[in-house]
Parts: sequence; C-alpha cells; structure tokens
Amino acid sequence: MRADARKNYDHLLAVAREVVTEHGADASMRDIARRADVGLATLLRHFPTREALFEALLRENLDALTQQAVELETSNPPDEALVSWFREGVAFVQSYSGVVALMAGAHAAPESALYASCAAVHSAGERLLLRAQAEGTARADMNGDDLFALMSALGWLGDQSSFAPRADHLFHLIANAILTNQPSNDVKKAKR
Amino acid sequence: MRADARKNYDHLLAVAREVVTEHGADASMRDIARRADVGLATLLRHFPTREALFEALLRENLDALTQQAVELETSNPPDEALVSWFREGVAFVQSYSGVVALMAGAHAAPESALYASCAAVHSAGERLLLRAQAEGTARADMNGDDLFALMSALGWLGDQSSFAPRADHLFHLIANAILTNQPSNDVKKAKR
Repeated sequence: MRADARKNYDHLLAVAREVVTEHGADASMRDIARRADVGLATLLRHFPTREALFEALLRENLDALTQQAVELETSNPPDEALVSWFREGVAFVQSYSGVVALMAGAHAAPESALYASCAAVHSAGERLLLRAQAEGTARADMNGDDLFALMSALGWLGDQSSFAPRADHLFHLIANAILTNQPSNDVKKAKR
Repeated sequence: MRADARKNYDHLLAVAREVVTEHGADASMRDIARRADVGLATLLRHFPTREALFEALLRENLDALTQQAVELETSNPPDEALVSWFREGVAFVQSYSGVVALMAGAHAAPESALYASCAAVHSAGERLLLRAQAEGTARADMNGDDLFALMSALGWLGDQSSFAPRADHLFHLIANAILTNQPSNDVKKAKR
C-alpha cells in the first residue's frame, strides 16, 4: 500500500472504530463514511463489505492483544502477568457488542479471515497461562481454551444490561478461579 | 380451567417442550400444532402468541427450579446443596437456546409475565447461597445476582459450539470459584 493510501486506510479504520464503539456492531457503512467525511464509494474501495471492515477492526485489536501477551511474557510475577492480560482481553471482548460471536465464529472456522489472528491470541494467552502454571500460581487443570471461554463469558456478561453493574466483581471472582488458592482468595493480595 | 381443558393445555405444553428442545427457540407454532395433532387454531386458543407459549414453558421450568431450591434448603451439607442446585440451573439455562436472553430480559422488567417466576428462582438460589456463606463454605463476597450471572454465563458458554466441549470443566472451575478455598480446590473432594 502506498503511504497516502495507508494513511487514508488508517484514518477510515480509526473513524470506524469510533462509530462502532458508539453504535455497536449495527453501525452502518453510510454512518462511517459520513463521519470520515468521505463518499460511500471511497469507504467501499478500502472495505468492500461490512464484514471486511469488521475483520480489519478486529484484526487490529487481536494483534494488539497478542502483542501485549508477548510483552507480558517476560514480566513478573507470572500470575499477575496472566491476570493483567486476561483483563485486557475481557475489555476488548466488551469493547463492542457482537465481537464475541464474531470471534467465536472465527476461532471455529480455520478458513475465515480472522482465524490466524484469533489463533495467535489464543497461543499467546496460553503461553502466559503455562508460565503461571509452571510456577504453581494458576490452576493446573486449565488450558488455553478454558481461558478463552472464560474471557468470552465475561465479555458476554458485560454486554447484558442486567449483569453489567456487577461486571468488575464477576471479573474478580473468575480471575480468582484461574489462580490457585491464595490464603485470602483475593487477587489483590496475590500481588507481591 | 376445567379438567379436560387443563389436560389439553398440559399436553400442548409437553409437545411444545419437545419441539423447542429439538429445534430451539425458532420452533414455529405450526410445527408444534402438527406434532400435537391439533389445528393451529386450537393451539392459538391456548397460547395466543409464541411469546405466551414460551412464557408458559419457561414459567414451568423456573417454578420447578424454585421448588428444587426449596427442597435443598434442608439438605446437607449446604455447599453441596448449593452446587447441586447451581448445576440444575445451568442445565435449565442450556435446555434451549434463547432462554438466557428471555430470562435476562424478564429479570430486568418487573412488568413482564415471567418476572415473578424469575424473582422466585433468584430468591430461592440466594437463600442456598446465604446458607453456605453462613457455614463459611461459599465466598462471602458473592450475592444472588452474581450466582444468577454465573449460571447464565455457563448457560451461554454451553450454547456456543466452540466452547461446548469444555462446558463440564468450565462448570467445575466456576463452582470452585463460588465455594471457599478447599485445600484441593476441587468440588468433588469438598464432599464429606
């Protein structure tokens, strides 16, 4: 991509992120083009379909999440690194409604455009889990699929208006379930 | 309701449950009438709308779940009673797709037809939680809303094809999160 094309692409993506964050996965291409101050044809030249645009948005998020995991792999202690990353993952899943379904779909479909980004997040999260397990601070009977499932479940809970008010507390309960028993059963006190 | 009308009503409800269990919340009134071997008009006389039929189905389930909780209130030990009931609740939520959204909606809308049944389940579950908390075997920082949220989240996970294979294990992880620390962090071993 030429530098100016790349700049336009990045601008459109940033605007799309704003609109989708405000209006959820129902945001229309027309709304996004209007906010970006370009014609619909210009937007469609970069992203031929809504699906292509959502894929680009999600790929950016997923790749950032993978990058965060990679950085945390050298951070100590391993249980804190795991919980920090898990919190980032939940925040991402909650960032706009519909993302859980899209991710779960991509994760289960090796031919989908998002599969590689999903698989990379999955592996990076699993490495953080394995590191905490090796140290004895995360449950030995969990795997990367469980971590991904619990992250998605917390994202889903945060999306339900009746459960959202307790979302932080539910995060705390589930983070505790991932870590091995602390005498106080409290993530905060697990910090050393 | 006269005895024969009651019998017809119960028969239609039982058939509807079969069809909905097989086809999920998308089952049509026409399919249900056909399976029950009655005309659509007869089905509509008992249940004027799909919503009315689903409400009747769910109310039956919810009232059974409340009844189970009431029976378990005198059963010991309290932590086992709580986990047994929690398991029943998750099984109900998973029994047909769409039930989570219907319940979450009803729980948040005091004017809805299902509200009373939902509120009764909620209170009955909370009493089991309080009993285990009084005994020191359930986390003191959880309330009935959290219990309901975790039950719904497990129901949702079981509905997602990519997570369903680990549903039992995820139940186990979350049941452990509800109970206070066991030396083995294992629900099974918590049995005395």
